Amino acid sequence: MNRFAYAAVAALTVCASASRADEGMWTFHGFPLAKANAALKTNLDQAWLDRVRAATVRLSNCTASFVSGEGLILTNHHCIAACLAEQSSKEKSYLEDGFIAKTRDEEKKCQTQVADVLVDMEEITAKISAAVAGKSEALANDARKATLTQLEGECEAATKQKCQSVTLYNGGQYWLYKYKRYTDVRLVFAPEDSIAAFGGDPDNFQFPRWCLDMGLLRAYEDGKPVSPKTFLKINFAGPAAGDPVFVSGHPGTTERLLTLAQLKQQRNIELPQWLLRYSEIRGRLIQFSATSPENARITADTLNSLENGIKVRRKMLDALHEDTLLARKAAEQAALEKSIAKNADLKKKTGNPWKDIDAALETERGIYLPHNYIENGAGFQGRLVNYARTLVRGTAEREKPNAERYREFTDSALKRVEQNLGASVPVYPELEEIRLGNGLERMREWLGPDHAVVRKLMSTESPAALAKRLVSGTKLADPAVRLELWKGGSAAIAASTDPLIVLARSIDADARALRKTYEDKVEAPMRSATERIARARFATLGTSVYPDATFTLRLNYGTVQGWNENGTPVEPFTKLSRAFERATGADPFLIPASWQRVKDKLDMNTPFNLSTNNDIVGGNSGSPLINAKGEIVGLMFDGNIHSISGAYWFDTEKNRSVAVHPAIMREALSKVYAADAVLAELTK
Amino acid sequence: MNRFAYAAVAALTVCASASRADEGMWTFHGFPLAKANAALKTNLDQAWLDRVRAATVRLSNCTASFVSGEGLILTNHHCIAACLAEQSSKEKSYLEDGFIAKTRDEEKKCQTQVADVLVDMEEITAKISAAVAGKSEALANDARKATLTQLEGECEAATKQKCQSVTLYNGGQYWLYKYKRYTDVRLVFAPEDSIAAFGGDPDNFQFPRWCLDMGLLRAYEDGKPVSPKTFLKINFAGPAAGDPVFVSGHPGTTERLLTLAQLKQQRNIELPQWLLRYSEIRGRLIQFSATSPENARITADTLNSLENGIKVRRKMLDALHEDTLLARKAAEQAALEKSIAKNADLKKKTGNPWKDIDAALETERGIYLPHNYIENGAGFQGRLVNYARTLVRGTAEREKPNAERYREFTDSALKRVEQNLGASVPVYPELEEIRLGNGLERMREWLGPDHAVVRKLMSTESPAALAKRLVSGTKLADPAVRLELWKGGSAAIAASTDPLIVLARSIDADARALRKTYEDKVEAPMRSATERIARARFATLGTSVYPDATFTLRLNYGTVQGWNENGTPVEPFTKLSRAFERATGADPFLIPASWQRVKDKLDMNTPFNLSTNNDIVGGNSGSPLINAKGEIVGLMFDGNIHSISGAYWFDTEKNRSVAVHPAIMREALSKVYAADAVLAELTK
Repeated sequence: MNRFAYAAVAALTVCASASRADEGMWTFHGFPLAKANAALKTNLDQAWLDRVRAATVRLSNCTASFVSGEGLILTNHHCIAACLAEQSSKEKSYLEDGFIAKTRDEEKKCQTQVADVLVDMEEITAKISAAVAGKSEALANDARKATLTQLEGECEAATKQKCQSVTLYNGGQYWLYKYKRYTDVRLVFAPEDSIAAFGGDPDNFQFPRWCLDMGLLRAYEDGKPVSPKTFLKINFAGPAAGDPVFVSGHPGTTERLLTLAQLKQQRNIELPQWLLRYSEIRGRLIQFSATSPENARITADTLNSLENGIKVRRKMLDALHEDTLLARKAAEQAALEKSIAKNADLKKKTGNPWKDIDAALETERGIYLPHNYIENGAGFQGRLVNYARTLVRGTAEREKPNAERYREFTDSALKRVEQNLGASVPVYPELEEIRLGNGLERMREWLGPDHAVVRKLMSTESPAALAKRLVSGTKLADPAVRLELWKGGSAAIAASTDPLIVLARSIDADARALRKTYEDKVEAPMRSATERIARARFATLGTSVYPDATFTLRLNYGTVQGWNENGTPVEPFTKLSRAFERATGADPFLIPASWQRVKDKLDMNTPFNLSTNNDIVGGNSGSPLINAKGEIVGLMFDGNIHSISGAYWFDTEKNRSVAVHPAIMREALSKVYAADAVLAELTK
Repeated sequence: MNRFAYAAVAALTVCASASRADEGMWTFHGFPLAKANAALKTNLDQAWLDRVRAATVRLSNCTASFVSGEGLILTNHHCIAACLAEQSSKEKSYLEDGFIAKTRDEEKKCQTQVADVLVDMEEITAKISAAVAGKSEALANDARKATLTQLEGECEAATKQKCQSVTLYNGGQYWLYKYKRYTDVRLVFAPEDSIAAFGGDPDNFQFPRWCLDMGLLRAYEDGKPVSPKTFLKINFAGPAAGDPVFVSGHPGTTERLLTLAQLKQQRNIELPQWLLRYSEIRGRLIQFSATSPENARITADTLNSLENGIKVRRKMLDALHEDTLLARKAAEQAALEKSIAKNADLKKKTGNPWKDIDAALETERGIYLPHNYIENGAGFQGRLVNYARTLVRGTAEREKPNAERYREFTDSALKRVEQNLGASVPVYPELEEIRLGNGLERMREWLGPDHAVVRKLMSTESPAALAKRLVSGTKLADPAVRLELWKGGSAAIAASTDPLIVLARSIDADARALRKTYEDKVEAPMRSATERIARARFATLGTSVYPDATFTLRLNYGTVQGWNENGTPVEPFTKLSRAFERATGADPFLIPASWQRVKDKLDMNTPFNLSTNNDIVGGNSGSPLINAKGEIVGLMFDGNIHSISGAYWFDTEKNRSVAVHPAIMREALSKVYAADAVLAELTK
C-alpha cells in the first residue's frame, strides 16, 4: 500500500445515490460535517477539523501525523523503508535490523524526504477558466499549465509557503493548496522489517494480520526539533468494535468515474503491460537476491515495493474483469447522457465528450509503446539513468521562462529536483545494470529491433552489454558530480562525455516529440472532455459528491468493524498470541530475535491489528486513525484484499482498511525495544 | 511456434459463410479436393493426398516429413532443440554449436522423441454415442473415456499400430487414428542456434525474417535406417510469388468457436495467470543465465520455449481484447441459437448448452487456483518433481483395470511414459531448484499461507529452502533409480524415502480430489454442452466446415504471398544479403563464425525465408510446404505477428505463415556446413 499504488487519471465519483455512510474521500473544504455527525452520533466541529488538518503530515510518498510537541512524526515502517535503505549498505541493513536513536544526536536525516502540513486552500477555478477560454484544445492545455505555474509562483513569492495546484473532479475544480514544508526529516525509530511486515508479500492486503508497520521520524528546522502548531495524542487503549473513527490523510489515486472506454484502456493495455514488465523484473530481482545475503540486502526495498505494486495491479485487473462493475459504469454514463439530453443549453456546452475520449484513447493506443518506453522511461530503468535524464532535461527546461517549462521543472518544483540530485544515497551498480539492461531489452522487444531509437542505441551492442558499459562508465553515482553538472547548466551537459549523459542527450529529442504528441493529441482533448463531463455532473448532481483521490488531504469517516467472507465472519481485532502460532521460523513468517528474547514478558492478549470500514487507498499509508475526541486510536497501513477494487468503486460490504493497534505499539516500544525516551514523549 | 503454443479446448469452426479460400485446417478424410482445385487451378487427386499423408511425420512436439528413401526426416531446428539440449552439458552445447553427423555412426539418438506416420483413420462416433446414452453427465464423461481407452486397446492388439482416439468438433465426431510409430529417431544435422533463430525472441513471429530454422533426423528400426513407404523431394528452386502451396501437418490447438463465456474465461483468468507466472520465471532464468556461460547453456532451451510461449499468449490476450472479435462470436452464437429455436425437435435435444457452460465455468473459477497449482502442477515445476509425480500416480494407476485409469496411464500410453522415465537426459540441480522453488513460492502466494496443502508443505520451511532440500536429496535424476521404482510398482513407491517421492505421495490425494471435482463438475457438463452445440451445428450447417486443430493431421491450401502492413506492402521473400546487414555482432543478431568464414563464397541473392497465406498454428512447425507436384518448396517454422490471433479466427488480410526457403538450405548445407553426404541424399 505504498507509492506504487498510485496510478493514472483522476475522475469524479459515481453519483449521489451510490454514496454510502462510510464511503468518501472528502476534502477538508467540502467535508459533510452534519451528515457525518448524524450518521455516527458525534459532535465534530470546524475546530476539530482544523486541528486534525494541522496535525496531519504529508510525506513524499505517504501520510503521517505529529504525535508530540517536539516534532515527533508517526507513520508506517514501509513509508520510511526508502530512508532506511538509504542509510544502509551491503553489510548493514537498517531494514533488516531496525533502528533506534537513543538520543536526538543519533537521529539520522532522510536524504530524500520532506514533510508538508496543509495550512491554506484557495479555489482558482475561475482563473483557469478565464485563461483557457476560447482556445483550441491543445492551446488551452498549454495555457492551463502555464497559468497553474504562474499562480503557484505568485503564491510562493507572496506566502513563502510551498504552493501546489490541485485538480479536483478531473478538471471540474482547480485549487491552490499551501503547505508548510519541512525538508529536514530524521529517523527516530523503526522495528525490524520481519515484524513490521510479518507475513511479507503473501500476507500483504490480507486480514487477519500481525504487522508492527510503524516508524517514527522527527521534523527539524534550523537544526532544531520543530514545535508543531498542534499534535495528536495516542490513546494506547485503542477503540472498541463499532466505534466511530476517522482517517485523515492523502489517498493517492482513485478512478471511480473513468468512462467505460478509459477503464477498458487500463484493462486491455496499461495493466497487462505493467504486470508483464514488473513480473519479469520481480523474477530477476528475486534471483539476484538469492545469490548472497549482501545482494538480498540491497534488493529488499525495491523488491518489496514492486511486489506490492504487482499485487495491487493484479487485483485492479481482476476488478476490471467484473462484468457487473463495467455494466454499472455503462449505466451511470447512460444516465448522465440522458440528463444532459434533457437540457438543450447543457447539451450544447457539453458536446459528446465520450466520443472525444474514444478518439483520444485510440491515438494513445497508437503511441502507447514508444511513449511508454522512451518518454515515460520504461526502457530506462534505474537510479543512474534517471539522474542523467533529469540533468539533461532539467538544465534545458530551467533556462526557459518559468511558465513555458514542463511542470516538473517549474521554479516551485526545482527545490525537490535539487534535493534529489544532491542526496547522498547508495547506488549499487549490480542492481543498476539489471534494471537498465532489462528496460533496454524489453524496449527492443516491444518497439522491435528496427525502431529508430532502438537502432540508435543497440545496433552494435546487446542490451546487457550496453547497460554494463553505461553503468560502469558513468560518474553519476556521486552527488557532487551530479550537482556540478546541474550547476553548469546546459553548457556543462553539452560538454559532458559521461556515457549516461550522452545516452540521455541522444534520446531527448525523440522523447520530447513523443511527449508533444501525447500532450496535444491525447491529454488535451481528454482534459477538455473530462472537464465538460465534470461540469455536466455539477449541473445535474451538484458538488455533494467527493472528488477522486489526488494525493491531497482528505478525511473520511467510518467505524471499527470486520466483515463477512463467504459466510465466515472476520473479527476486527487480532492478538499477539496468534502471530507466534503462525510463525514458521523462516522469512517472511519470522518473529525477530528481539521479540523471541522477551516472549515470556509479553502480554499475548495484546491487540495487534484492527480493521475498519474507512474508505482509503495507497497514499493513506501512515494515516492516523482518529476517534471523535481527536485521539489517535490506530495507524493505517493496509486494506484487505477487497480494498484494492476501491480504485474503481467502494464495496461497502467487504472493503476494509487495516491499522496497527496502539496497544501493540506500546507493548513493543516498552518491552521489546526499551525505547523509553520515545514512549515518554508519546505519553507526555 | 512450438509446443508451448498448444492450449486448452478444441471447438468447431465459425460458420460456412466465414470460410475463405485460404482458410481451414482440413482433415485428410474431409479435404475439399474439388473446392481446392477450383480455387487454385490445380489437379490434386486422392493419390496425391495419400502420398503426402504417408510422407508426413508427427514428432512428439512438431511436424516433419520424410525427405529420402533412407529415413531422413526434415523438420525445424526448434523442433529438435530439446534433443540437442539432451545431448549437451554445461561445457558443450549442441544448440550453440550445431551438429553434423559425418557418418551414420555419428547420428545420435533423441532420448525422448518419436516419429509417427498416419496410416489409417476410422470413425467411432456411433460407438461413443452408444456408450454414453442415457447416462448422467459425470457418468457419461467416465464412460466416454473408458470406451476410448477400450477401443484404443483393441485397435492396438489387432493392428500392432499405435492407435489414438481423436475428438473432432469438440465432441461432434470421434475417430481412431492409426500410426506407424518409430521410437528410434536420431540427430543428423542442426545448424547453430544463432542462425537457426537469427533475431531471437525480438524477431520471433515477425516477417521479414532470416532464420535457417531447419534440422534433420533419421528414423531407425531394428538398428537400421527406415525405408519409408514414400518421401517428398525438395525442389531447391522454391516457389514463385502467387504459386499454389499446401501445408500438411499437425496444428496443435485452435479455439475458433469457443463460446463467448469460454473466451472471457481465457481472457480474464487463464491467460493473465499464465503470463504473470511465466514472466516472472523468464526473469529468474534470464538472471540465472547471466551469471556464467555454463548457466546460459543449460538454460537456453527452456528459456527459448518459454519466451515463445509468452509471445504467443500475449498476442492471444490482445486478440481477446478486440471488441470486434467478441462481437462476432456473440453474433454467431445468436445466429445458431435462432436456427435452433426454429426447429422444435432440435431445440429439445439441444437444451441450453450456453447456460450449462456458464455454470461449469463458474465452478471452474471457484477451483481454478488450487486445481492449477496442485493438480495441474503450477506449484510443482521442473523435471525432477514431475518424475516423482509420474511415478507415484502412474504406479497406482497401472494396477487398475485399463479402462478405469486416468487416460494418460492407459496401456496404450504407458510405453511413452516408460520411454520418458528411462531417458538418459541431463538434469541440472540449479535449474530444478529455481523452478521448483518458484512454483512453491507462487503456490503459497496464490493459495495463501493458511491453505491446507501449503501448511502441509511449508509450515516450517521457506519455499526456497524446501526446494533446495528436495532437489539435493532426491536420487530421481538417475534413470536407473526411476525405472527401479517404476518396476517396483506401488509397493516400491510406498517404501521409498526419496524426498520428492515423499512429497508427491503427500499431495496425491489432494490433487486427485481436485481432479475429480474438475472432471465431474467442469469437464463433464462442458463436454455434454459442446457436443450438443456441435450436433446442432451439424444439423444446421452440415460438416462442410473444418474441425478445430487437435494436433492431428491436417492439410490446408493457399498461395505464396506477402501482405499489406498499414499501407506498406510486405514482400513474400527475403534475401541472404539483408541478414548480414542486420547483424549487430551480438546475440540474438549474431551471424555465426561458420558463415562469416565463407561469406565471400555465398550468393547474397539467395532467398532466405518466405511467407504464404496458409492457415497454420503451433504444431505445424516443421511442416513441409508442398507444391501441386508434391515437391517440398519450403519448411514452415513460424507465422507473422497477426498469425497468433489464428487461435481464434483467421484474418485473411494479414495472417501469414513463414517458411525457410529451400535455396538457403542448399546454400548452407553446401557452402557453410560442407554436408555433402546429406545434400547428395536429398538430391538423389
